[in-house]
Amino acid sequence: MQADSLKTQCIPADAVTHELARFVARTGWSDIPATVRHEAKRALVNYVAVALAGYHDPVIDKAVAVYGRFRADERASVIGRSERTDMLNAAALNAMSANVFDFDDTHMPTIIHPAAPVAAPLFALAEAQVDTRAGAAPISGEALLVAFALGVEVECRIGNAVSPGHYQRGWHITSTCGVFGAAAAVAKACGLNGQQIVWALGNASAQAGGLVETLGTMSKSISVGNAARNGLLSALLAAEGFSGPDAPLEGARGFLRVTADAPDLSAITDGLGRDWALSSNTYKPYPCGVVLNPVIDACLELRRDARWTLDDIERVELTGHPPLRERTDRPGVRSGRESQVSAQHAVAVTLARGKAGLAEFSDAAVADPSLQAFAGRLRFIDDASWAVESAQVRIVLRSGESVSRRIHAARGSLAAPLADDELAAKLRELAAYGGSGVTPQPVVDMLWRFDHEPDAAALMRVARAPGAA
Amino acid sequence: MQADSLKTQCIPADAVTHELARFVARTGWSDIPATVRHEAKRALVNYVAVALAGYHDPVIDKAVAVYGRFRADERASVIGRSERTDMLNAAALNAMSANVFDFDDTHMPTIIHPAAPVAAPLFALAEAQVDTRAGAAPISGEALLVAFALGVEVECRIGNAVSPGHYQRGWHITSTCGVFGAAAAVAKACGLNGQQIVWALGNASAQAGGLVETLGTMSKSISVGNAARNGLLSALLAAEGFSGPDAPLEGARGFLRVTADAPDLSAITDGLGRDWALSSNTYKPYPCGVVLNPVIDACLELRRDARWTLDDIERVELTGHPPLRERTDRPGVRSGRESQVSAQHAVAVTLARGKAGLAEFSDAAVADPSLQAFAGRLRFIDDASWAVESAQVRIVLRSGESVSRRIHAARGSLAAPLADDELAAKLRELAAYGGSGVTPQPVVDMLWRFDHEPDAAALMRVARAPGAA
Repeated sequence: MQADSLKTQCIPADAVTHELARFVARTGWSDIPATVRHEAKRALVNYVAVALAGYHDPVIDKAVAVYGRFRADERASVIGRSERTDMLNAAALNAMSANVFDFDDTHMPTIIHPAAPVAAPLFALAEAQVDTRAGAAPISGEALLVAFALGVEVECRIGNAVSPGHYQRGWHITSTCGVFGAAAAVAKACGLNGQQIVWALGNASAQAGGLVETLGTMSKSISVGNAARNGLLSALLAAEGFSGPDAPLEGARGFLRVTADAPDLSAITDGLGRDWALSSNTYKPYPCGVVLNPVIDACLELRRDARWTLDDIERVELTGHPPLRERTDRPGVRSGRESQVSAQHAVAVTLARGKAGLAEFSDAAVADPSLQAFAGRLRFIDDASWAVESAQVRIVLRSGESVSRRIHAARGSLAAPLADDELAAKLRELAAYGGSGVTPQPVVDMLWRFDHEPDAAALMRVARAPGAA
Repeated sequence: MQADSLKTQCIPADAVTHELARFVARTGWSDIPATVRHEAKRALVNYVAVALAGYHDPVIDKAVAVYGRFRADERASVIGRSERTDMLNAAALNAMSANVFDFDDTHMPTIIHPAAPVAAPLFALAEAQVDTRAGAAPISGEALLVAFALGVEVECRIGNAVSPGHYQRGWHITSTCGVFGAAAAVAKACGLNGQQIVWALGNASAQAGGLVETLGTMSKSISVGNAARNGLLSALLAAEGFSGPDAPLEGARGFLRVTADAPDLSAITDGLGRDWALSSNTYKPYPCGVVLNPVIDACLELRRDARWTLDDIERVELTGHPPLRERTDRPGVRSGRESQVSAQHAVAVTLARGKAGLAEFSDAAVADPSLQAFAGRLRFIDDASWAVESAQVRIVLRSGESVSRRIHAARGSLAAPLADDELAAKLRELAAYGGSGVTPQPVVDMLWRFDHEPDAAALMRVARAPGAA
């Protein structure tokens, strides 16, 4: 399908769900630009990386225990773990574990974490399909990449249409938009037609939910898991003729108008097939709120040749755009999860240890008295002219000396993206941190060539714990 | 627990979730007024009645087929059906079938259908508990009634706090508030403490969803089923220590503020233990939008001694409050479901047949050309001074004669509630209409004495299809 042919169609303004569904139904591998295809692979490398770190968080352990009581079969895997479960549960649990540290990918225009809700149901479907349909063709790596790219596209375009009001109002946008991405992706992988994809999106609209109020608590993971699970269920229902409204997105009481005060309907359809959401996707070098990235970059550089210790510091001045202060001025944090959005903790731990990995944002790190004592020595300096990916850290020592470092484009930003090698290294590091015993290199090797993989489910065979059935 | 003792506690204004949870944790059978206890039984009679009609709707058949692929065990029943399934699926499917015709109960201040999302998970839990916990005491009928009354209380108080803006904005309030009712009810039945009930409500807040845009489509049933299923899951997770936010309802980004522009927090806690939501619950005599009840009453009375036929009618003038016209002025309906909110169809079919049951609001009835031809002969006359439970129907015949009937309080309204005998008759009629083979009298007999029933799961043994394992 060519973008031009869509442009010349006469689409009524009130039919954006149908137009979006037709785009999903018609688009194939050859319609996707090479850079976008590669970005889909990068997003999957990052997805598996973060799941290999998150799979044994207490949130996931509890969810595996409770959800496991309701598993119908053992056709699908949980990344990093040995338990098998059914595809609905696997979709939920893998999305949860990939997102539990908020270390997953970030679509910059919306701050959606796009991969987890979309990738998790696709791999679960691929595993169940191989296991259940005797003689049926497996879902190929290429088919999964197409479905993934389109799912992310649907998810983020809906996010664009409701941003920024939706998140500001209190909707956890990864969850609320993720269910549509999952539904579209699975519908594509199952070969549904345009009308069925509209139904899948309608079934998803009935299940969109998730509140910002739950961030920092276990409850958050439920809505991320639901996005993956319920999107998958929405498509399975649509395949059986379970029908929904004509305009679940743009209808008068549809998702866009109900969850945003001034939705931009054109964001759903403008530039379909030309502008791809994956081109605005980024990967975090540090397990923190994305606004802290340039701060940590600066601290790591300052630390490199430092001849001072934390005790020598009189104060640290942090200059950046006002949202940096608004989102991260959090002294006195009490948990690893909270520390991920605390400038006080991020500056202290990075200057003290010269590292900023998951261990530095754990409950144990937060309990370190020397880091806690530092909190009162941080000063914020707002400058609205600074870009979100920039910041300056100035250290004033008790001796009177000072050193400073300014970062213009943080590592992992769209202007300074992590290289493929850095993403592979992130996967290796997180696999080691997680301790699942999964060998990282086969995962990375398979994903870089995933369009040549005949059976997408093969990825889960190398990403689940060794010894899993 | 006495209501007075709550009144004298010093509760911070921002702790309504905790106050509500403490109320649920502390309240027992002896704290519930006799009229409310009896209303709980009446709501359950109506719940089983509508489920016995809805269980074989195509929506439910499709849901049973797809959800059935993901059943972990067969410990729980589906009312009217022979399939067994696990408790999460049973919660979803029974809530769906009880609500599929919108013939279930109505909490007048909010237009929530309270019973389906709360009763379905409680009975599923009761069945699973008997089956799984060797030596554990079953959940008694009395304990289930307490949990049901409290679940309805939580559901409707949250609904009161967000009404009327929430539904007007496009939230399907039965689904969005139902998940909290289900969570609270199951938490109570499981004996969770106040903190755990707050967690259950937090886990539910992450799962609240459902859009008015989906009404009249199959998608609507998904959100009603989810309310029951996910509320149950929320409480099971909370029991395992899966924790949530402190203020999922009243928090800055909590359910109340996110889904309503001007929530009334005092509606959550004012008069707890004194004013009961079940006292404002009503049961429909006809399977229609509740505003049509007085219209149908009038048509039935006019038909009783009529010497005219539909063809003799020049026009019908329908006088009522403006929302009657706004919600039901729907000529040209194409499905039974749509006809349930069409004054044109309701007037035509009731005047033609002298009945207003499910058969009169079916696809077959809608296809009747003589009823379709009538639609153009209805005139609405708005009068804002009329109450919602009143209406007048005036028939002007081609002969020039006219007859009219004014109804001040529709059957089934709070002013003219269905009698216990009428509810039992509704159950018998719907059981016969549904054709499940379930014998209605044992269901009715058991529910009127349900507080003396040692095992609440016994109800499902008489309400599922004969021959179910």
